[in-house]
Amino acid sequence: MMVSEKQENPSILKRGWLWFRDIPSKPIAKLRDVARRAIKVAEEDPRRLIHSLKVGLTITLVSLLYYLQPMYNNLGASAILAVMTVVVVFEFTVGGTIGRCLNQGLATLAAAALAIGAQRLAILSGKRSEPYLIGLFVFIQAVAMTFLRFFHNVKAKYDYGVLIFILSFILVSISGLRTNNVLNLAQARLVTILIGASSSLAVCILIRPVWAGEDLHKYVAQNISQLGNFLEGHMDQCFKTLPDVGIEITKPSIVNLDSILVDSKVKEETLADLAGWEPGHGQFMFRHPWKQYLRIGNLTRQCACRLEPINGYLNSEFQAPKEIECTIQEAFTESRKALKELAWAIETTTEPSSANPHIENLKITSSNLKSLLRSGIWGDQSDVLQIIPVAAAMIDTISSVEQIGDAVKELSFMAKFKSRTAEIPERCD
Amino acid sequence: MMVSEKQENPSILKRGWLWFRDIPSKPIAKLRDVARRAIKVAEEDPRRLIHSLKVGLTITLVSLLYYLQPMYNNLGASAILAVMTVVVVFEFTVGGTIGRCLNQGLATLAAAALAIGAQRLAILSGKRSEPYLIGLFVFIQAVAMTFLRFFHNVKAKYDYGVLIFILSFILVSISGLRTNNVLNLAQARLVTILIGASSSLAVCILIRPVWAGEDLHKYVAQNISQLGNFLEGHMDQCFKTLPDVGIEITKPSIVNLDSILVDSKVKEETLADLAGWEPGHGQFMFRHPWKQYLRIGNLTRQCACRLEPINGYLNSEFQAPKEIECTIQEAFTESRKALKELAWAIETTTEPSSANPHIENLKITSSNLKSLLRSGIWGDQSDVLQIIPVAAAMIDTISSVEQIGDAVKELSFMAKFKSRTAEIPERCD
Repeated sequence: MMVSEKQENPSILKRGWLWFRDIPSKPIAKLRDVARRAIKVAEEDPRRLIHSLKVGLTITLVSLLYYLQPMYNNLGASAILAVMTVVVVFEFTVGGTIGRCLNQGLATLAAAALAIGAQRLAILSGKRSEPYLIGLFVFIQAVAMTFLRFFHNVKAKYDYGVLIFILSFILVSISGLRTNNVLNLAQARLVTILIGASSSLAVCILIRPVWAGEDLHKYVAQNISQLGNFLEGHMDQCFKTLPDVGIEITKPSIVNLDSILVDSKVKEETLADLAGWEPGHGQFMFRHPWKQYLRIGNLTRQCACRLEPINGYLNSEFQAPKEIECTIQEAFTESRKALKELAWAIETTTEPSSANPHIENLKITSSNLKSLLRSGIWGDQSDVLQIIPVAAAMIDTISSVEQIGDAVKELSFMAKFKSRTAEIPERCD
Repeated sequence: MMVSEKQENPSILKRGWLWFRDIPSKPIAKLRDVARRAIKVAEEDPRRLIHSLKVGLTITLVSLLYYLQPMYNNLGASAILAVMTVVVVFEFTVGGTIGRCLNQGLATLAAAALAIGAQRLAILSGKRSEPYLIGLFVFIQAVAMTFLRFFHNVKAKYDYGVLIFILSFILVSISGLRTNNVLNLAQARLVTILIGASSSLAVCILIRPVWAGEDLHKYVAQNISQLGNFLEGHMDQCFKTLPDVGIEITKPSIVNLDSILVDSKVKEETLADLAGWEPGHGQFMFRHPWKQYLRIGNLTRQCACRLEPINGYLNSEFQAPKEIECTIQEAFTESRKALKELAWAIETTTEPSSANPHIENLKITSSNLKSLLRSGIWGDQSDVLQIIPVAAAMIDTISSVEQIGDAVKELSFMAKFKSRTAEIPERCD
C-alpha cells in the first residue's frame, strides 16, 4: 500500500528494492504449496504420519549398532546393512512388512547356501577355471531369476525375494574370489538382516499397527455402502422423496462411482495379497477368507458398471407413468436398503440376515417391473428412451445386488460372523 | 502295462519297486509343470527371454570389474556396488531403465552432498555432540522422506529415487563416524553407480530395445480394435450377416471386454509414465503426447462399459421390427468400421480421415434410431425389454465412438501423424 503512493514514477532505488524483495517469494510460495499438500496427505490418512515416525525411530535405533563401540567391533562395517534392511523392508502395513522380511530372509538364506555350493564346486575344478565357472553360474542364475520375475504369481508375492536372491547370490559367490572367509561374510549378512528385519517387525506390529486385512475389510464394506449412497442421491433428485418442509435439508450429493470402477480392483488385490501374510489380529483369524473379499469386490464393480449409465438418464425431469415410476422407485429404495444392510453386516462382522427381506422384495419388484414394461402401458411414448434404459439398468442392478448378497452370506459363513440372534439368550427347556 | 499282468497279487518286492519308482515322479511332474509355464510366459512375449539374457550378460560383464586385478585395485570392494546397481536399475523397458538410472544417480548425488554437509555441521558442533546431531539428522531425513513417498506424484515417478536417497544419506552420514574419508566413500559410490548404470543403459538400448512408448501406442490401438471385434462377433451371431454358403466359415468368437475394463488403466498409466523418460525413437519424438493416449484409453474403457451389457441382451433369438433391426444393425456395422479405422490410423500413425464418413453415418443412424423408438412401432410388445436396452446401449456407444474419434484426431494433430493424401503428389501449377 505504501508503495502505491509513488507508483507513477518510482525511483530506481525503489524498483531495485521491489525486485530484491520478491526474490524469496517464489520459493516461499512453492514451500507453502508443498506444506499445504503435505497437510492434505496427512489429513487423508493420519496413519501415514505415524508410519513415517515409526520408520525414523527404527532407523535411528538400528543405527545405534554403528555408534556403539562393542556392537561395531562384532559386526564391523556390515552393521550398515542392518539399517539398509530397515529402509527396504519397513512397509506401511504389517502384512507388507512381514512379506518383505520373509522374502528377504529366505531369499538371502537360499542364495547364500547356493552360492557357497557353487563356489565349492568352482574351487574343486581347479584354480584356473574357478573365475570362469563362477562367471557362468552368475550368468545362468541371473538369466533364470530375471525370467522367473515374469511369472504372474511370482511377481505378485515374491518379486522382492527374487531380486534379493540375485543380489545375495552375486555378492556371496563373487566375494569368494577375493576373500577366503565366505562363510563369515554370509553369516554377517544373515545376522545383520535378522537384526534389521526383527526390529522393523517389532516396531511395525507393536506401535499402532496398520493391518492390510482390516483395511481390505473396511474398504469392501465402504464400496458397497457407496453404491447405496449413489442410489440415495439419485432417488432424492428424481423422485423428490424428501419432504418439502420449511427446514432446509442438505440433499445428499450424487456419489461418483469412478473410484469404484477404476481404482478398486488393484487396491483390493494388493491388500488381499498383503493380508495373506498377516497373523490373526482383532476379529480376523490367521486364515481369514481374504479371497472372498475379492469376489465381493468384483460383484460390486459389476453392479457399479450397471448403475453408472443411470447418471445419463436420470435427472429432475424424469417422468414415467405413475405405476412404473413407483416400481422403479421401490427398486431404488429396496436396493439401497439391501446394500446398506450388507455393508453394515460386513462392517460389524454379523450375519447379513437383515438384508434378506429387502432382497426378497427386490425379486418381486424385478418381476413386477418386467411384466409392467411388457404390458405396454406407456403414458407418453416419447419417454420410452428414458424409462426403459433406467428400468433395464435397475433390473440388472437387482440381480447384481442378489449376487452380492449371496457372496456376503458365503463370507459370513466362511469367516464365522456373529449371529444376529446371539444376543437373545436361548430359552431353557 | 507290464505291471498290470501281475496286478492281482503283486509281490512285496514289486510293490517296493513301484514305490521306489514313483519317488522321482512328483518333482519331475512339478518341474515339467514349471517348464510348461515358462514356455507359456516366453511365448506370450518372446522379448521377456531376450530381456533375461540381456540382464545376465550385463551382470556378467560388470562383474568383470571384480575379476580383473587392475580394476579391483582402483575400486576395491565397492566394485560389487556396480553389479548391485545393474540388478536394481535394469528394467524391461528403456523408459523404466532410464528412469531408474536417473533416480539412482540424482538421488545418490543429492543425498551424498546433503550428508556431507550434515556431517561437516556436526563436526563443527564438537566431538561429543557429533553422534547425537548425526542421529538427529538421520531421524529427520528418514521421517520426511518416508512421508514424501505418500505424495501421489512422487510415488508414481520418484519412489525409487526417494528410497535411494534415504539409503545413501544414511550410508554416507553414518560412515562418517567411523572413517575420515567420507568424500572418498561418496566418490567411490558415485563412480560404481555410474559404471553400473551406464552399462545397463547401453545394453538396454543397443540390444533389441523394448520401448514403453511403442508398447503404449500399440496397446491403445489394439484395445480400440478389440471393441470393433466385439461388435463384429455379436453382429455375426445375432444378425446372421455371414452368407450360408456350403463352405464352413469359422465364426469370430465373442470377444471378452474384461481385460479392457479391468486391467487396461493401470497398464496404460504405467506405460505412459515410463514413456515420459524415453528419448525420441522410431516414429515418436521426445515429447510425444503420451498423455493423450491416456485420454483415448479412458474413452475406450467408457465405450467398453457401455457395450458390455449388450452381452446379456443379444443372443441368436434377438427379434425386433424389421426397421429397428436394420437400424441397430447399421449402428453395429458403422461403429465397427469407425473403430477399426481409428485403430488402424493409430497403428500406422496416419490421419484418421478414413473414419470420418463412418462417424458421419453414425450420427444419422443415432438420430434415426431415436426417432424410430419414439415413434412407437413395436411389432411385438414383449420384446421391448430386449430391444430398447440394446438400442440405448448402441446410442451411448455411438456417442462414445464419436468422442474416441475426436480424441484420435487431436492425437494425430498433436503428434503430426502422416496425412493420408501425402502419397498423392501435388499438382504443379
